[in-house]
Amino acid sequence: MEEKTNVEEIQEEKKPEKIEEKEPTNIINFKDFGKVEMVVAMILEVEKVENADRLLKLEVDTGEDKRTLVAGVADYYSTEDLKGRKIIIVKNLKPAKIRGVHSRGMILAASGPDGRPYIPIIPEDTPIGAKLK
Amino acid sequence: MEEKTNVEEIQEEKKPEKIEEKEPTNIINFKDFGKVEMVVAMILEVEKVENADRLLKLEVDTGEDKRTLVAGVADYYSTEDLKGRKIIIVKNLKPAKIRGVHSRGMILAASGPDGRPYIPIIPEDTPIGAKLK
Repeated sequence: MEEKTNVEEIQEEKKPEKIEEKEPTNIINFKDFGKVEMVVAMILEVEKVENADRLLKLEVDTGEDKRTLVAGVADYYSTEDLKGRKIIIVKNLKPAKIRGVHSRGMILAASGPDGRPYIPIIPEDTPIGAKLK
Repeated sequence: MEEKTNVEEIQEEKKPEKIEEKEPTNIINFKDFGKVEMVVAMILEVEKVENADRLLKLEVDTGEDKRTLVAGVADYYSTEDLKGRKIIIVKNLKPAKIRGVHSRGMILAASGPDGRPYIPIIPEDTPIGAKLK
């Protein structure tokens, strides 16, 4: 996280020298990062998606609205694991219809080498709708 | 608008109504999202940044390299809170020099209305370097 009060003191480096060998080729700037809107949301309801064993349909409160999204985590998380839990969602992702469910946004999870999802735990006192940055 | 009772019709009609007013104008697609590389990293060392009370200098293991980044969380997190902890970092953000420290990447945290940071807790068994998606 960048220091908020001293923005003018943050200077982008012209020449990253020592780093070059490991530097990813697809460097982004803050503007690129800012395009992705991530917020803390609360899971209100969880249901299995019919005929899709790995999918769960989540009703979430984003702090601004309530919406539905589909998450492919049912192999690792039960409905009980998730209901009432705070999560991070990518809020402004283009809506998609997944197995007939209109999904608006995506749960953010770490993905292991085997594809197993690890959903970050949000500290209990984090306000719903708090932006990730 | 007339009330629908057929479930399928309700599902079809759902998107325009509730959502329209709240729909973000800056919708992104998966490609946009994919430009932001976020991974689970382990904090190896934490130091205060000289003459910057709110800043901490973190040495982290990204699974691919070890690197330094600066985080403006010292008002809320101590060095002891953070050392040995797993975090999410934005890995491919353009490097910046912050108070003389070469910072490569950014810790991802939720930010409350008062600017207070809430750092997500990564499940202990999450592999270092796991990608967030």
